Amino acid sequence: MRTIIIGGVAAGMSTATRLRRLDEARQITVSERGTHVSFANCGLPYHVGGVIPERSSLLLQSPESLASRFALDVCVRHEVVSIDPTARTVTVRDLTTGAERIEAYDELVLATGATASPGPSAEHVPTHTLRSVEDVDRILAVLEQAGPEPRVVVVGAGFVGLEAVENLRARGAQVTLVSRGRQVLSPLDPEMAAPVLRTLRRAGVDVRLGATVTGAEPGRVHLSDGRSIDTVLVVEASGVRPDRSLADAAGIAVGPTGGIAVDGRHRTSQPHVWAVGDGVEKLDQLDGAPTLVTMAGLANRHGRAAADDIAGTEPEDAVPALGTAILGLLGTTLALVGWSERRLVAAGRPHRVVHTHPASHAAYYPGAESMAMKLLVDPATDRILGAQIVGGEGVDKRIDVIAVAMAAGLTATALSQLELAYAPQYGSAKDPVNMLGYVAENTATGATRTVQWHELAAARDDGVVLVDVRSPAEHAAGAIPGSVNLPLDELRLRLGELPDGPVVVHCQVGQRGHTAARLLTQLGYDVRNLDGGYATWTAGTAAA
Amino acid sequence: MRTIIIGGVAAGMSTATRLRRLDEARQITVSERGTHVSFANCGLPYHVGGVIPERSSLLLQSPESLASRFALDVCVRHEVVSIDPTARTVTVRDLTTGAERIEAYDELVLATGATASPGPSAEHVPTHTLRSVEDVDRILAVLEQAGPEPRVVVVGAGFVGLEAVENLRARGAQVTLVSRGRQVLSPLDPEMAAPVLRTLRRAGVDVRLGATVTGAEPGRVHLSDGRSIDTVLVVEASGVRPDRSLADAAGIAVGPTGGIAVDGRHRTSQPHVWAVGDGVEKLDQLDGAPTLVTMAGLANRHGRAAADDIAGTEPEDAVPALGTAILGLLGTTLALVGWSERRLVAAGRPHRVVHTHPASHAAYYPGAESMAMKLLVDPATDRILGAQIVGGEGVDKRIDVIAVAMAAGLTATALSQLELAYAPQYGSAKDPVNMLGYVAENTATGATRTVQWHELAAARDDGVVLVDVRSPAEHAAGAIPGSVNLPLDELRLRLGELPDGPVVVHCQVGQRGHTAARLLTQLGYDVRNLDGGYATWTAGTAAA
Repeated sequence: MRTIIIGGVAAGMSTATRLRRLDEARQITVSERGTHVSFANCGLPYHVGGVIPERSSLLLQSPESLASRFALDVCVRHEVVSIDPTARTVTVRDLTTGAERIEAYDELVLATGATASPGPSAEHVPTHTLRSVEDVDRILAVLEQAGPEPRVVVVGAGFVGLEAVENLRARGAQVTLVSRGRQVLSPLDPEMAAPVLRTLRRAGVDVRLGATVTGAEPGRVHLSDGRSIDTVLVVEASGVRPDRSLADAAGIAVGPTGGIAVDGRHRTSQPHVWAVGDGVEKLDQLDGAPTLVTMAGLANRHGRAAADDIAGTEPEDAVPALGTAILGLLGTTLALVGWSERRLVAAGRPHRVVHTHPASHAAYYPGAESMAMKLLVDPATDRILGAQIVGGEGVDKRIDVIAVAMAAGLTATALSQLELAYAPQYGSAKDPVNMLGYVAENTATGATRTVQWHELAAARDDGVVLVDVRSPAEHAAGAIPGSVNLPLDELRLRLGELPDGPVVVHCQVGQRGHTAARLLTQLGYDVRNLDGGYATWTAGTAAA
Repeated sequence: MRTIIIGGVAAGMSTATRLRRLDEARQITVSERGTHVSFANCGLPYHVGGVIPERSSLLLQSPESLASRFALDVCVRHEVVSIDPTARTVTVRDLTTGAERIEAYDELVLATGATASPGPSAEHVPTHTLRSVEDVDRILAVLEQAGPEPRVVVVGAGFVGLEAVENLRARGAQVTLVSRGRQVLSPLDPEMAAPVLRTLRRAGVDVRLGATVTGAEPGRVHLSDGRSIDTVLVVEASGVRPDRSLADAAGIAVGPTGGIAVDGRHRTSQPHVWAVGDGVEKLDQLDGAPTLVTMAGLANRHGRAAADDIAGTEPEDAVPALGTAILGLLGTTLALVGWSERRLVAAGRPHRVVHTHPASHAAYYPGAESMAMKLLVDPATDRILGAQIVGGEGVDKRIDVIAVAMAAGLTATALSQLELAYAPQYGSAKDPVNMLGYVAENTATGATRTVQWHELAAARDDGVVLVDVRSPAEHAAGAIPGSVNLPLDELRLRLGELPDGPVVVHCQVGQRGHTAARLLTQLGYDVRNLDGGYATWTAGTAAA
């Protein structure tokens, strides 16, 4: 039996090594058109920044090491140029010699990944994506030729774009970030993306939102807003699309997202052909619909599962994707899982929203950092629909905890009951995730009615009075215009100062507001608590 | 309605504040015999060490702040000396004046916690537990009177004992740790506790295992091993027991563990009396049996739930306890959840064991730390029975992920499918938890047969040949006596050097051993892989 795998990075190499562990007798060939296989693609930006100083650290395996350890036949600079699924052959071109040869397979695995285009600046300014070791070499060559503090442009404010920004700054560059969207990181909701934008601007990054590169001249790019920017380099990170050139020519079916369509075992529409990785459609865990999620974890897992299927171990169907993702940016960590509020609204899907701002560990133990958390909940089932977290220490832990809860189908209320490890340097007796569950439960049971930051203006137009229950000092340091300050600790004594009509209370993050709302609700007031407090309102209105 | 709560720390104060948020009209009284309420008991050791420099940081609330915010009537230095459950009254003694008064309740909540005895050294050497702000004051007073580098003794090598060791060292003390057990941290299995002992000894702590304090003279304690130790202070941390004095006198039923027995809503055997916190029995999630788990998280949660029941919100029964716990010690983090192998063996409960030693994040990104993980799995159901992790960065995250998986009833194999957040500074595309799931799956399906570190000697007595598949350099740097070195990358070429009979292969941590075992299994060899490799074997045999 002979298996040919096209593409030798995460998905392809996971298929190859797993298949060897399952079947010592099989002939396994990996064709990779690039110069390297099994390289650390998620580490590429950090070699640009010098955080990973040695280029060799990125090269996890070589054709030689894969031959000796796994008896794999790995051919780099070999491009499969066509597939004949009827004859079960591929045509392979040796990119060094140009020679082509036809090779037969019993099983074929497409791990051809995704691709990006360099954009309209490429003709006049060095313009590179950040997807291969060669890309990094080219970017570093441009930077080394440039003088000190070179001006560079990054196009695209997604995960790779922001990693590029951080690392180009680490190399001493002055960075302009150009993004088509109205905010950075479109998978986040605006109030959660606002702190990221603030982080970028505080670090001196020139952020141009709602703009695209329309053209270039030598040393200069032109933007859609009419301005031009001097630059020695453009890093193109505005998105990728499945690389389907081979699949299309072979008559392999494509799904509604534009990715290669596969079944639960990663089989394509062509017999004996599997497909895995960034070029392939996944199923979304929330709605079961096809989706494109380009994550290394899924690529590795699906590659391994394809090998299981090829080897005949009858694997379970792939678990649908949650899209868990994380980014470190200039000391800030942001992470998300599931759907955003924007996406839920667009899909017309009912949802309840909770914002909190807990400390990363017990506030009395030094070094705690504040984080902003957002939870999206199905009002009918109490299931978790998504979460977003922005902060520092412990963001990665909390998104993973919520991702597991989602994968297991736990309710939002059940988050309060999770028995998480507590010592004061690691968390709190009521962990931020527990608290999120308590707040979700309070909104689910109606113990507290809340109003969202973007609903406040309309509520006030309807005559609601806004009461700030923080301390006078906090109120004086910054308040929502028109709010009345009635500190929580004096509220019982100063009830006479409250208006008769409906009231919205708020504090800094929502917790004192909750206590105030409970107090006033029991006394018969028509009261709601501003979800996430002044902190969420400030972030949201800054973004709007 | 009047609710009296006895005890004003975690469980009692959670009850009080939640009850107020649910019921503004109720009279709520908290009686605390100590001087402080709502103090950070988990932070106490860190104030001894100066990590938390300000004593005031430990005092989260005061009677005054609780009165103004929550309209609570909090009486410190007021001890409830008896309960009359028929009359529904308590007798309260004012510890300042000695005056007693009788107070009536509609509902009574016992949050009396656990207690510890000072031990036989108390008569001659300052001997203190570490359970209250006053304890900390006393310990600091002794240290301040002592000269530089005072000699101190800590009795008990559990969580609080080891936190005491770390912080007494931070104050400049020379510490002797005396523990009755044969290892530190008895909830861990020996091979997982071994790195902790190494950490202690490397830090210069004088660790005396299998010893107790039998007596003392001024400035000196005597140990059961016949030796004596000069010391200015004994910190007693050898364990606690439920403080049942009030409950017993009131005829409140006790469970088989010696804790106050309650139902799922924290109701005791006496009508109108609830009990929460460290003095109360919980149910164990694995076997449903009563258990004593003294964790702040459970105390807070159960206090809140008792308030829900008192207020009539019909809460769900308490979720059984997993016993998730974590400790930071001299740069090492260790954490556990569920049952240990020792406990499973003692209970005669079938189990499968997996050890791994992954990096905390992508190895190519700087700063990754190795961790040792152990997973215990039910062979019949594939459910997770327990986990233990020792390492540095990211231990807290992984134990929480596994705790959530256990709470949700996920299988060990399902760990491989969890979609955890990945960027190279936070994890790996195949996270340590995913890898644990893959290894568990490989043992479950029989893809790899493993042998445990403590089974190796018997296997070799039966004639098994041990093959070290690491590199010659690794083998030369330290090997299991009598093992044959046949590097994995040369294995296919050197099969002739293998014996005919059964073989155990091993590498450093188990991963190359797995690849070797797969290779040899397919070639017809009778082969097993040493679970956890040389690393686990070394830790286990060092502990044995």
